[in-house]
Order: sequence, then C-alpha cells, then structure tokens
Amino acid sequence: MATVRLTYFDGRGLGEIVRFILAACGIEFTETLLQERQEYEKLLEDGKLEFYQVPLLEIDGLELVQTGAIVRYVARKGGLYGHSNAEQSKIDMFYEGTRDFFDSFHLMVFQDPKEVLAKAKAKGLPRYLPVFDQALKKNGTGFLVGDSMSLADVSLIELLLIVTEYFGEETLSDYPSLKAFKSMMVSQERIAAFLKGPQRKGANTDAYVATCRTVLKLDI
Amino acid sequence: MATVRLTYFDGRGLGEIVRFILAACGIEFTETLLQERQEYEKLLEDGKLEFYQVPLLEIDGLELVQTGAIVRYVARKGGLYGHSNAEQSKIDMFYEGTRDFFDSFHLMVFQDPKEVLAKAKAKGLPRYLPVFDQALKKNGTGFLVGDSMSLADVSLIELLLIVTEYFGEETLSDYPSLKAFKSMMVSQERIAAFLKGPQRKGANTDAYVATCRTVLKLDI
Repeated sequence: MATVRLTYFDGRGLGEIVRFILAACGIEFTETLLQERQEYEKLLEDGKLEFYQVPLLEIDGLELVQTGAIVRYVARKGGLYGHSNAEQSKIDMFYEGTRDFFDSFHLMVFQDPKEVLAKAKAKGLPRYLPVFDQALKKNGTGFLVGDSMSLADVSLIELLLIVTEYFGEETLSDYPSLKAFKSMMVSQERIAAFLKGPQRKGANTDAYVATCRTVLKLDI
Repeated sequence: MATVRLTYFDGRGLGEIVRFILAACGIEFTETLLQERQEYEKLLEDGKLEFYQVPLLEIDGLELVQTGAIVRYVARKGGLYGHSNAEQSKIDMFYEGTRDFFDSFHLMVFQDPKEVLAKAKAKGLPRYLPVFDQALKKNGTGFLVGDSMSLADVSLIELLLIVTEYFGEETLSDYPSLKAFKSMMVSQERIAAFLKGPQRKGANTDAYVATCRTVLKLDI
C-alpha cells in the first residue's frame, strides 16, 4: 500500500482532526511537519495546495486539501460516515457544529490566547456543551448518530479533550452524557492507542505559534 | 410528496446556496421568510434549530441545519455529489474553497459593507478567481469535477454571480474558463428558471440587514 502522508505543522491546529480520523479508521500515516518557509513555498510551486493552505493529505494518489474535504474522504473510506443519506446529514450537522466551536480555539494562533480562551469559556461552553449532551442523550446509543462511531464522534472527542485540558474535567460535571461519551471514546482501542502514541500533538506552545507564523508569513 | 420547506430570511445570505442546490436538483420547495424575533424564538422552543441557527431545511421528515450539511444532503439526493469517494472529495474541496471566499461577502451583514467589498476585491478576487479558472481548464469538461454538474459548480456559480454583480462582468475578462463556465451554468434549464423565478433573492438591502439583526438580536 502506498504511503499516506499528512503535511501540516508540529502541533494540533487544523491537522489534529485529520490525525484523529485517520487513527479512528485504522489508517497508518506518515507526517511532514513544516518548519521553514521554503518547504511551504515548494509545496505551492509543486501545485499541491489547491487553495494555498494546509493541511494536505496525500492518499490513494490524491492530494486533498480543505480539512472538511479531507476528513470526509477518510471517514467514507473507513466506514465512519453513516449508512444512509439521513445519517450522513446528521453526521455533517454535528461535524459542522463541533468545528464552529473548535474554530474559536483555533484563533489562538492569530489572536491573544487569553482573550480567546475567556470568550470560549463565557460564550462557547454554555452554548455548545448542552447541545451535544442532549444530542447524545436523545440518540441513546452512546454515539451521536446511529449505533456506532462516526466522524461526528471523532470531531466531538477532539473538542472535549481541548475543553477539559483548558478548563478542567469539572467543566463536564453538569453534562452526564458528555462525561460518559468522553470515557467511552478515549477507551476505544484505536483512539486510546493514538492518544498514547507519538503522532498525538501537544497543546499550543509559543514555538509552535512562531513556526506557523513564519511558514505562513503572517505579519499581523 | 411532503412539502420541502426552507426557513431563512428574505435575502440571500446563507440561504441562497440552499435555494440554488434545491433548484439544480429539481426539488420544489416552499419558504418561511423570517421577519419577527418571535418567529425565531418559536423555532428555538420547538427544538428545530439544533445549533440555534438558520437556514433550516425540512425535508424527508428531517430538520436539517448547518448549511454544509443541508447542501450535501440535497446534492446526494439529487445526484449532484459525484460517483466515487475521489469525486466526492474533490467536490468537497471546491465547495469549501468557494465558501471560504463567499464568507467574506456574507460578513456584509455584520461589518461595514464598503470595507468588506474593498477587501474582497483587493484580496479575495486575485486569490480565488485564478484557482477556479485553472481548475476548470485542467478538468476540461466545463465542470469542476467529472463531466457533469455537481455541488461544486452550483457553489461556484452563486459566487461568480455575486462577484460580477458587485464588480462587473469585466472582473472575469482575464479568466476565459470562468467566463465560459458562467455562460454555460446560467443557461442550464433549472438554473435559468431559478434565476428568473420568484425564489431567487436580490442583493442585500438595508431592510434585509435590519431584519436579520432584529430577528437574531444582534446588538453589535
């Protein structure tokens, strides 16, 4: 089998959901972790970045960009994208909802991290956590859609790990379905192995942010 | 067949791409065009807005929210979402790329329209138009993916109509593939009928923006 290669930075950012879904699907992958502006310019010259952005996933002879396109391709390939149009639409709904909330954290690379976190805590948590808690309770299988793991669950566990890392486990104490979901998901064999393994990235560091800004030439 | 109902505002916004894809798939629909805060609160009370947002599409017994989820459901139902995982991933890539550019226009409801348009012209057009022009040229069938219309094309034509409406037809003069694409797409029977029909909405007006702000309780 040809190598599956993810090109991103040595941090979570938009790449981590790609790593999660690859891991959840049991697809092994190698990584190119960008450090220098020249590496990025080479990718642009080679025409590998359709919209001049990373992450890039090279898989099955394709050069996929746009996070939402990449994770859906992998989820379809790995059987984590539902069994009917109705299920797929629900998976899409929850995926988009988790990403809306996630985007507020992603802004930490571009804005003052303290302000971003304060806003996420004050506005994001009370808005999104009840929705996902209720959705899990209503579906009743432990998963967001249907009776097995999907892209929606993988996206939600990434988010809950961020939330509890920044704001503590007690953030979930009023949300029993989310608490149970988190325990269940991190115990899934492939997810557990990924979280313990070398491809799981750590929280943002100053060095990571500086590298992103250098490679992407962000002057602001 | 049960009624398909779109709930949004009496303007384009995030609803217009839903109208476009329904039209392109030949799916008839009715609309609820929100005017009052109470109508929105009723939807929230009834639990129809999973993430407290519109557009909402009621179709096949489902209550779909999140634009990206809605348009994919409709595109799959109508056969405008490719014939393989590879095609679907390319459709997703172009869809996400068009939406990234579109989002800058959508900001007009929330920010100073003149500034938004100036930025779109200075940064958005030179960044995105060449990408789509080249992609069409490379694919060579007149469509972005494969040899027939897909969600990607529907998303691109919505964008090109906005671009030429605000900045003139000459905006496309350096992009022959985009010009040809625009002519071809607006001549497609279902698209042409939609553009001439009563469900096509006009460009933003002050009244539309004011209604959005009242219904959504946007104080800023």
